[in-house]
Amino acid sequence: MTVTTPETIDVLATDVLSGNRRALARACSLVESTVQRDRDSAVALLDVLLPHCVASRRIGVSGAPGVGKSTFVESFGMSAIAHGSKVAVLAVDPSSKRTGGSILGDKVRMQNLGNDANAYVRPSPSRLTLGGATSSTRELIVVCEAAGYDTIIIETVGVGQSEIEVADMVDMFLLLVLANAGDDVQGIKRGIMEVADAIVVTKSDVDDSAAKRAIAQYTGTLRFLIPSNANWTAPVIGTSALAAQGIDDVMASVKEFFSDARRDSIEERRNQQRRSWFETALRRRFVEMLASDVNIGPMLEALQQDVENGHALPSSAVHRFVSSIAITFQKARL
Amino acid sequence: MTVTTPETIDVLATDVLSGNRRALARACSLVESTVQRDRDSAVALLDVLLPHCVASRRIGVSGAPGVGKSTFVESFGMSAIAHGSKVAVLAVDPSSKRTGGSILGDKVRMQNLGNDANAYVRPSPSRLTLGGATSSTRELIVVCEAAGYDTIIIETVGVGQSEIEVADMVDMFLLLVLANAGDDVQGIKRGIMEVADAIVVTKSDVDDSAAKRAIAQYTGTLRFLIPSNANWTAPVIGTSALAAQGIDDVMASVKEFFSDARRDSIEERRNQQRRSWFETALRRRFVEMLASDVNIGPMLEALQQDVENGHALPSSAVHRFVSSIAITFQKARL
Repeated sequence: MTVTTPETIDVLATDVLSGNRRALARACSLVESTVQRDRDSAVALLDVLLPHCVASRRIGVSGAPGVGKSTFVESFGMSAIAHGSKVAVLAVDPSSKRTGGSILGDKVRMQNLGNDANAYVRPSPSRLTLGGATSSTRELIVVCEAAGYDTIIIETVGVGQSEIEVADMVDMFLLLVLANAGDDVQGIKRGIMEVADAIVVTKSDVDDSAAKRAIAQYTGTLRFLIPSNANWTAPVIGTSALAAQGIDDVMASVKEFFSDARRDSIEERRNQQRRSWFETALRRRFVEMLASDVNIGPMLEALQQDVENGHALPSSAVHRFVSSIAITFQKARL
Repeated sequence: MTVTTPETIDVLATDVLSGNRRALARACSLVESTVQRDRDSAVALLDVLLPHCVASRRIGVSGAPGVGKSTFVESFGMSAIAHGSKVAVLAVDPSSKRTGGSILGDKVRMQNLGNDANAYVRPSPSRLTLGGATSSTRELIVVCEAAGYDTIIIETVGVGQSEIEVADMVDMFLLLVLANAGDDVQGIKRGIMEVADAIVVTKSDVDDSAAKRAIAQYTGTLRFLIPSNANWTAPVIGTSALAAQGIDDVMASVKEFFSDARRDSIEERRNQQRRSWFETALRRRFVEMLASDVNIGPMLEALQQDVENGHALPSSAVHRFVSSIAITFQKARL
């Protein structure tokens, strides 16, 4: 990146706030950069943007490959725009090995949204660790909200813990499932149904009776689980994005979720997310800082080895290590 | 505690290894202590004990209050002893406000186990934070295994995240549920069914048809979820601990779970647990160390306030904070 001085940061921020799409793309790239100097610039940029964020709906969309996420996001996003929203689509894809080609990929997958003046489709970042991916996505949300986007859709393919991490950065989490053509048994990932605020059964038009069975089954299973929101019962909605069926039902459910009556719950959830984001970032950054230290890094690795071999208990190893670090740290005081 | 010198640590360790129950109780108390000097002694003790741990089965037992956990643990534990095991029962109860009285409480709850020479029932610790409770429980497991106990049962009442934390320190996790006398709808805590390696329906004798319905329903729901162990299908077992029904079935299931064919899976799970224990301990201890620093502590609190008020982004706040800490840290080098 070339953004390094406070002046250029201010120019970039002004451009983002005025709705300049190119500036938005540059701001997003800056936030995604893992270069140390870019990090400093990104933090400065985010500080300027933060107070300008519009009130927004942050919606997570997840589901197994082939469930029809892109088609759904396209239909749902266009519906939101028709209702007067500006829509940003972000992707969390920790497995992504794609490079520049993904830009074209995402735009092709969502052709209407990709060409709409009220939509911004951010391509999946290419090389990223999971922690890094979700951390920068949280910041991308802020950038998009500062640029005036009031409906933020975070899509994830659901590799590793990505859905759980996405659920932890959105207000409402939609789980997309397929009405299984064959049988009713469907492997749903651990913990995923319990964070779903709505289950969307896609491609319902393919087999009507299978869709009805699936809806009944998911509804039954959800009754077993304590919902993630105390005052919200997750609906199970049949859709066919291609035939434009059910999208209105999903939209109605989203509107109800974000109704004034639920404002406090949503705010409470965001506060909780901010707290856990802070704690996670703090803990991770410390360990990163120490691991990158020329003396401490190798010491840490040796300890980890001892723990993995069963030669040392994790808590003992950490106790000894932190005690010795604390002494070094106290010396810095003197 | 009075154990402070390396000599007395060695004596205590020898006594624990020889099967002295009083020494075992003292070792457990030392491990549970939060006094800094005791921590150092505990770490030294654990280092001596670690190589002497016997091969063991670590079994977690959880369920809502009233489900009959103590009765189940008593029956199951006595059955294990009859099969030649030595049984230790530990409790994770983060909500516990009890003091000394709990010793009597736990022994009364499990009268047979409490009086058996081949069982050690460790009373619930009294005042503890959740992190502290689970951290010391992991160490208690090591102490008991060094003392020759080969079946370790960790019981939790399931407050907060305690089941998830217990699931993360055992080989096999048993979820106890009640065959609901009224209807089939039962609130199961988020994420809990997915970590269960077996579901035990208790008090099945009260209403036979309700128990059958419950077993069918839980079996159906489990089919929806991807099991926590790739090569294990969680069974749903009806029991009546009072009428001594079904305990043999649970024991058969436990034996199958710990069969030679599954040894690699269990070892892999323990390795994973060791790694995450190390990382969690490392991250938490660092932040504790810094938070307790006279200069850094207040700075950290002010930042947290900014984050909660929405005045700063968590990642920005952490970035700035860690950068300034890093400078202090580098000075210690010079």
